Amino acid sequence: MKIIVDIFGGDNSPEALVKGSIDAMTERSDLEIVMVGDESKIADELKKYKHDAGKIEIIDAKDVITNDDVPTMAIKTKKESSLVKALEALKSREDICGMVSAGSTGAVLTGGIFKVGRIKSVSRPALAPVLPTKTGGNVCLIDCGANVDCRPEFLTQFALMGSCYMKAVFGIENPRVGLVSVGVEDKKGNELTKEVFKALKEMPINFVGNMEARDALTGNYDVLVCDGFVGNVLLKTAEGTAGMVMSMLKKAIMGSASAKFGSLFMKKAFGKLKNDMDYNRRGGAPFLGVEKVMVKAHGGSNDIAIKAAVLQTVKMAENNLVASIKQELDRLQNNE
Amino acid sequence: MKIIVDIFGGDNSPEALVKGSIDAMTERSDLEIVMVGDESKIADELKKYKHDAGKIEIIDAKDVITNDDVPTMAIKTKKESSLVKALEALKSREDICGMVSAGSTGAVLTGGIFKVGRIKSVSRPALAPVLPTKTGGNVCLIDCGANVDCRPEFLTQFALMGSCYMKAVFGIENPRVGLVSVGVEDKKGNELTKEVFKALKEMPINFVGNMEARDALTGNYDVLVCDGFVGNVLLKTAEGTAGMVMSMLKKAIMGSASAKFGSLFMKKAFGKLKNDMDYNRRGGAPFLGVEKVMVKAHGGSNDIAIKAAVLQTVKMAENNLVASIKQELDRLQNNE
Repeated sequence: MKIIVDIFGGDNSPEALVKGSIDAMTERSDLEIVMVGDESKIADELKKYKHDAGKIEIIDAKDVITNDDVPTMAIKTKKESSLVKALEALKSREDICGMVSAGSTGAVLTGGIFKVGRIKSVSRPALAPVLPTKTGGNVCLIDCGANVDCRPEFLTQFALMGSCYMKAVFGIENPRVGLVSVGVEDKKGNELTKEVFKALKEMPINFVGNMEARDALTGNYDVLVCDGFVGNVLLKTAEGTAGMVMSMLKKAIMGSASAKFGSLFMKKAFGKLKNDMDYNRRGGAPFLGVEKVMVKAHGGSNDIAIKAAVLQTVKMAENNLVASIKQELDRLQNNE
Repeated sequence: MKIIVDIFGGDNSPEALVKGSIDAMTERSDLEIVMVGDESKIADELKKYKHDAGKIEIIDAKDVITNDDVPTMAIKTKKESSLVKALEALKSREDICGMVSAGSTGAVLTGGIFKVGRIKSVSRPALAPVLPTKTGGNVCLIDCGANVDCRPEFLTQFALMGSCYMKAVFGIENPRVGLVSVGVEDKKGNELTKEVFKALKEMPINFVGNMEARDALTGNYDVLVCDGFVGNVLLKTAEGTAGMVMSMLKKAIMGSASAKFGSLFMKKAFGKLKNDMDYNRRGGAPFLGVEKVMVKAHGGSNDIAIKAAVLQTVKMAENNLVASIKQELDRLQNNE
C-alpha cells in the first residue's frame, strides 16, 4: 500500500507532515510513503527519526502553493509545486493508492478535479469531514465547502457518496442519512432541500428524513447532507461554540478560588474531554467523487492529525471506496 | 406602557406566561399587561400571586393554536384563539405598544404579517434572536428562520433592521455588521452573499465584511446577516454543540472519582457557566419589520424567560424601534 503525501503547504510543514507519515508507517508495516517537496528539507527531517528508507520515496518539488495563491491559477502555473507534482503522480501512477495534503483547501479541491479528475457519474465532488457525536460515534458532513451553490442532484449524490464512505471506513452497514433543514417535519426546508427531500425518499439509501441542526451531533445520524455553504456554517459554528464553551468554563473556574482548587482534581477529566473533542485525532476531510482517494488535512494539522489522515487514506483505499462510489452512482443512474 | 401577552400556545401555558408577566410588572411599576386566553384559567393563575388588578386586563379567548396547526390556515380560521385575538388587539388598539407570544413560530410570524402588517418598505420581516458572546456581549442573528429563500435585497434590509435593533435595545452606537459566509475574504461566498456583499458595502451602516461562522460568538460583531435557512442552522448548531460539550464534560467528570470530588468545589462556577449560556435570560426573538413590536418567546420558555421577553418588548417600544426602522428604510430607498 503506497500513499503520497504533499509535505509542503501546511502550517507545520515540513515537520508535522514528515513525522506524521513516519508514525503512520510504524503503525502499518505494509505502508510505503511517497513524500513530495523540497528534497533536501525532507531529507533533513527524515534524519530525525528511525525509519526504513526502502519504504520512502521522495519526489523533489521546490515550489509551494500557499493560501494567498488563487487556486485555479496556482494549479495551472505552479508546475513545480509540491501539490501539483503530488496530484500528477497520484493520477498517473497505479502504485499510488491515495494522497494526503494539508495545503490550501481551494487548491487541493481544484487540483483534485483538474489533475486527478472527477468520477464520470459524479456532478460535483464534495468535502466530507467526520465529526464526533455525543454518543462517542462519528457523523459525516457532506458537503462542507467545496460547492457553495448546489442543484438538487448534487445533494442526492452527496448522500450516496457519504453513505459509501461511512460504510467503507467506519463499517456502518446501513448509514442513517439526514437532510440538514430547519425542522424535522417532511415539509420543512427551503426550495433546494424540498426538492432533495423528494429525491432522497426514492433512493436506495437509509434516508431518515429532515434533520434540525440542533441534532447534528446527537449520534442519531451517520451522514448529514447539505450544500457546501450550509455545511461550512454548520461545521464552523460547532467548532466556534465548542471553543467558546471551553473558554467560558475556564473563565468561570479562574474566577473562583474554590473552583480553582477543585479543578486540580479534574485535570484528567478535562484532558479526556479535550481529547474527545480533538479534531486532530480524526484525520482529515476526504474529497469524495474524484478518481482516486484524496484526504484534505487541516492546514494547522500537527503530526498526530497527519498520522490519522494517512491511516484514514489507507483505509479508504483498502476498502475500494472509489470503486464503490462508482458502482453506487452507476446503479442510481441506471435506475432512473 | 401597555403590553399584550398571548398566555396560551406555549409549553408552559398558562403558568409561566402569567407568572412571567406579573414578575415583569413588579420590576416596572409603569407596566400594564393585557392577558389573552381562557379567562377563568388566567383568573385562577392570577390568584396565586400578589398583583395590582387595575393594571391587568383580560381578553377572553377559548381556543389555542398549536404546533400541529398549519399556520396560515390557523390564523384564518381559529378566530377565537388567544394568538389571533392578541394580534387583532395589537393591530387595532393604539394603547397597546407590543406583544409577546410563546406559541407556534409559524403562526406568530404568519399572524404578524397578515394581522399586524409589515412595514411598507420592508420586503420580508425577519426573526432576530440575540446570542451571548465570548466577551459577555450580545450579537443579533437576522434572519433566523422566517425566510428560508431570500433575494439579496431581503438581506440588506435585515442588516438595517438588525442595526436599528441593537442600537435601540442594547445602546450600541454603531453596530458592527457581519455577513455570514464561508470565509472572511471579500470574494468568499455563494451567489446570494456575493450580491449582498456588494450592496452592504454601499449602505450607511457599519459593515465590517464577510464573517466565518467560527467567529459568530467571538464578540467581534453586533449583527450577523444571513438568510433564514442559514441563520436557523447556525443558531441550532450553536445550541446543540453547547449542550453536547456540557454533557461530554459531565460524562468525563462522572467517569473519574477524583474529578467527581473536585467538582464539589466547582458547583458555583458550573452554575455561573450555565447561567451565562442560558438562553432563557435573554428573552425572545423580536420579529422585525412589522408595524408593531412583536417578540416570539421560545415555546419552552419558563417564567424567567417570559419576564425577560416582556421587558425586552417594553424596551423596544420605549425606544420607538418600529419608527426608527421605518425611517432608516425610507432613507435607504430614497438614496437609491
